[in-house]
Amino acid sequence: MAEKILRVDMSDLSVKSESVPTAWQGLGGRALTSVIVAAEVEPTCHPLGKKNKLVFAPGLLSGTRAANSGRLSAGAKSPLTGTIKESNSGGTAAQLLARMGIKALIIEGVPTACQFYALKVTTDGVTITPENDLVGCGNFEVVEKLNLVDNKECGLISIGQAGERQQLAANISVKDPEGKFRSLGRGGLGAVMGSKGIKYITLDAAGTQKSVPLADSDKFKEAAKTFAKALLDHPVCGEGLGAYGTNVLVNIVDAVGGLPTKNFRYGHYEDHELISGEKMAEMISERGGKVKHGCHAGCVMQCSQVFVDKNGEYVTSGFEYETIWALGAHCCISDLDILAQADNLMDDIGIDSIETAVTLGLAMEAGIIEFGDGPGLLKLLDEIKNGTPVGRILGSGASVTGKVYGLTRVPVVKDQAIPAYDPRSVKGIGITYCTSTMGADHTIGYTIATNILKCGGFVDPLQKEGQVELSRNLQIATAAVDSTGLCIFVAFAVLDDPTALPAIVDMLNARFGISLTVDDVTALGTSVLKTERAFNQAAGFTNAHDRLPEFFTDEVVPPHNAVWDFSDAEIDEFWNF
Amino acid sequence: MAEKILRVDMSDLSVKSESVPTAWQGLGGRALTSVIVAAEVEPTCHPLGKKNKLVFAPGLLSGTRAANSGRLSAGAKSPLTGTIKESNSGGTAAQLLARMGIKALIIEGVPTACQFYALKVTTDGVTITPENDLVGCGNFEVVEKLNLVDNKECGLISIGQAGERQQLAANISVKDPEGKFRSLGRGGLGAVMGSKGIKYITLDAAGTQKSVPLADSDKFKEAAKTFAKALLDHPVCGEGLGAYGTNVLVNIVDAVGGLPTKNFRYGHYEDHELISGEKMAEMISERGGKVKHGCHAGCVMQCSQVFVDKNGEYVTSGFEYETIWALGAHCCISDLDILAQADNLMDDIGIDSIETAVTLGLAMEAGIIEFGDGPGLLKLLDEIKNGTPVGRILGSGASVTGKVYGLTRVPVVKDQAIPAYDPRSVKGIGITYCTSTMGADHTIGYTIATNILKCGGFVDPLQKEGQVELSRNLQIATAAVDSTGLCIFVAFAVLDDPTALPAIVDMLNARFGISLTVDDVTALGTSVLKTERAFNQAAGFTNAHDRLPEFFTDEVVPPHNAVWDFSDAEIDEFWNF
Repeated sequence: MAEKILRVDMSDLSVKSESVPTAWQGLGGRALTSVIVAAEVEPTCHPLGKKNKLVFAPGLLSGTRAANSGRLSAGAKSPLTGTIKESNSGGTAAQLLARMGIKALIIEGVPTACQFYALKVTTDGVTITPENDLVGCGNFEVVEKLNLVDNKECGLISIGQAGERQQLAANISVKDPEGKFRSLGRGGLGAVMGSKGIKYITLDAAGTQKSVPLADSDKFKEAAKTFAKALLDHPVCGEGLGAYGTNVLVNIVDAVGGLPTKNFRYGHYEDHELISGEKMAEMISERGGKVKHGCHAGCVMQCSQVFVDKNGEYVTSGFEYETIWALGAHCCISDLDILAQADNLMDDIGIDSIETAVTLGLAMEAGIIEFGDGPGLLKLLDEIKNGTPVGRILGSGASVTGKVYGLTRVPVVKDQAIPAYDPRSVKGIGITYCTSTMGADHTIGYTIATNILKCGGFVDPLQKEGQVELSRNLQIATAAVDSTGLCIFVAFAVLDDPTALPAIVDMLNARFGISLTVDDVTALGTSVLKTERAFNQAAGFTNAHDRLPEFFTDEVVPPHNAVWDFSDAEIDEFWNF
Repeated sequence: MAEKILRVDMSDLSVKSESVPTAWQGLGGRALTSVIVAAEVEPTCHPLGKKNKLVFAPGLLSGTRAANSGRLSAGAKSPLTGTIKESNSGGTAAQLLARMGIKALIIEGVPTACQFYALKVTTDGVTITPENDLVGCGNFEVVEKLNLVDNKECGLISIGQAGERQQLAANISVKDPEGKFRSLGRGGLGAVMGSKGIKYITLDAAGTQKSVPLADSDKFKEAAKTFAKALLDHPVCGEGLGAYGTNVLVNIVDAVGGLPTKNFRYGHYEDHELISGEKMAEMISERGGKVKHGCHAGCVMQCSQVFVDKNGEYVTSGFEYETIWALGAHCCISDLDILAQADNLMDDIGIDSIETAVTLGLAMEAGIIEFGDGPGLLKLLDEIKNGTPVGRILGSGASVTGKVYGLTRVPVVKDQAIPAYDPRSVKGIGITYCTSTMGADHTIGYTIATNILKCGGFVDPLQKEGQVELSRNLQIATAAVDSTGLCIFVAFAVLDDPTALPAIVDMLNARFGISLTVDDVTALGTSVLKTERAFNQAAGFTNAHDRLPEFFTDEVVPPHNAVWDFSDAEIDEFWNF
């Protein structure tokens, strides 16, 4: 079965199935979404207008039995940042799309009618039907009413109330194997889906083979085994993430003075132990939740978990470090039960938990509620859900909220909220925030690996030396990994285990019957970054946008009393490759 | 008496009096504010942070008896646009500053305490005192409580509630000869003053000479007489503006299909006669208001008026075409009494009437109230006054409001609202909107003069030919005029009467004992534009920001069914000088 591109035009509700152009055949995931967006979207267009396109693409290895290969990429011009954007997520959608032979689903245009629609994707193509009943519903109601919670063969990509309202912090939710949601989180892609009038997309792969065809099945199996072993043998991938989830980081990042506290005033949170991964695992175990859990089939790291309340009732899953940091240390709330409720609410509303929780800290900065006010925070999330004026403001993210309330301590780069690592005390990640093609983001060049976790060596987080090169190498590698459908956490093993990267290359070669080298993978990453950068430049971005807000330069952060001390020229060296 | 620069640092409440550097001696008004901002403000700084500076400067001819020379310039990095910004206004402040020998008042830093202050400027310098009683008051209460309504020798520069809250649409209000207010309107400079913790500035020139010293008094008088005659002889300056105010334009612009109606859906407003200058003059005459009125001493055009209600009670003055257009045709409200109340409210709150009224139209676009709902509009202005969440949103201007409500038809350039002339049917002004160094603005290169009023020739508003050159020439000339303290409306006479420009040059020479030529004045204008452009480029602006929103390209505007059809290259030709 030849792979195909599906193209849906919401302006006339038409669908086309196209063969894959030669230039796109070697691409998947982020490489494919970014190349399509760069080729087909006017860089200066309105992100919520008819000229933007929303592209979904499984990774190159998605649909195979390679460990941790089930990530789905979505790309568009971001309404939050104005840059090109790729976001990726677990869930079942990538594997189902791959099994249906769909290399990309491109959604174009906006409806002429003020109407929401549902898309149904099957091996026969796409049908588009008006949707009224589920408009206004949160994601959990959508999956339940569609009776898709337990249907493993039918995926769901959905938006909540935030996406319907085209709020800049809206995400796109992707059903996971448990019928809960994973998020295409950052950059406001849910607003783009909302602008296209699509409430949800079902992906029905019933009747297809359980995995995609392989050019060389034996070679693939061998490489996949080597790769899985490399993951399982690694202390972070094989142990830490499974035991405590990504929230293993609270204590670690706090210990190095990099846990941004009370809107980036401190690098240490006195109540950090109360929100730590260790505490969370203890609570989950005591209450009978699940400590380990995968966001997609084939995950061997199991960094997710099911968090339950005192009565053992489900509260949330995929309860990540960045969310817990932002609701916790950033907002000074140390009650994990409240944080879990907030996480669940954000999943339901369909809004990025990093952008939103950082913004809730700004609501505290603005005096709307006090720092530490957990019940107040939950009420503000209800306002976002209900689309009240305050909810509308907060749903627009940190930068807009800062403007509306006249704040100067607004932690954003290119209008996207800075996540869970203080760039003054972990300087490599500061370079990543600045130079990211998508606004402040940690996953795009996760220097924490080397600055703190000492994967792939060690670069002292408090010194400037080596950070630009570290961030550049990781951003190139990440762009490649994001194209394979592999979870970014495989990078820990890739950095430390010399068998891991060759195994990935071998899997790609065995999947497609090609003969890539490790250098080709690096070249792909470089090419993706340069494509994204060129889009941004055409959209009006310059080096002057590759900067942290001035308060990081002006205010020292305890306990190291570190400041952001890179010169413009030092930052701009990043793009010299 | 040598002129001086006063420098106030709000971070330590210190004041310095400095002699005027040689390089600044030939500058005034916009030339001086822009040169100071470009020299002293980091282009990438946060506009509401300690690195921005707010600069007030009278024009080169302010304080003389030259007709219409009483404009005050204010400059800073704009929090609304992120660009450099100069705004100028009538009122008494420019003449009082000039009489005190103050060439510029530079306000730096932000207070360390959460406290508002009052500045008192006299010939002895500046005193800074904490201000509590008037915090939270509108501008009218400020001037009344300070007992300054009738004090001609003491000026007042003030912010209302919007400026205190650092709202992006906040303006700075300047007391006029009647004790009412003129506005340093656009670009959110009131938020900058608010960020500096200054509620108001009094300018007490008691005891100074009534006009500034002149190097050659006889020559000055002669040139001033020639200049005043040129103004009085011109049909626009000497007749139209006085008879109907700037609102003379409603019928004129409507007739050429350029009156943006219902958020730029149409170029003709069916109820245009009800909000026209003719209708307004009739109402004012019947009710016993004032049809003619000047915004500063020495104005011979008298384009202002005092609008009164049915009982003859004062409602507003300085009731301008752009305000009336935006509240009227743009919001589809045809009741001049409601429009006048709204104008007065905006003066009191201290918020830009163009930005705010355009934004109120977007509130209608978003469905918060219906188009045409006058009482609803007044209620929304009360929300801005009271700082409710909706008020906060709307007080943040059109671009932020568009983001909060997910709108695509948002008429802004560089985040500043497009004013009262549709760029599709009056193409020259579209080039001005795009290329302005300060976001969408009409005054910065008022091609309406030549496109519609046929001053200085005629360039067909519906054709592309000649528009770039027209806008460029007018922008250069305007940058020079804005530096003299002369009202921009003198440009009508300058365009048509060959004696006017030489008279201005003669006045400058006689004032300072120098020997400028007409070419020197043009060179000054060119230099100002290039200085401003360089600041913006360093702040991260590129040609990609010199663009109209895409709906102007995609939607034709009746009655001419015109679209915006300039290519990027054609627009970018503007800066080729």
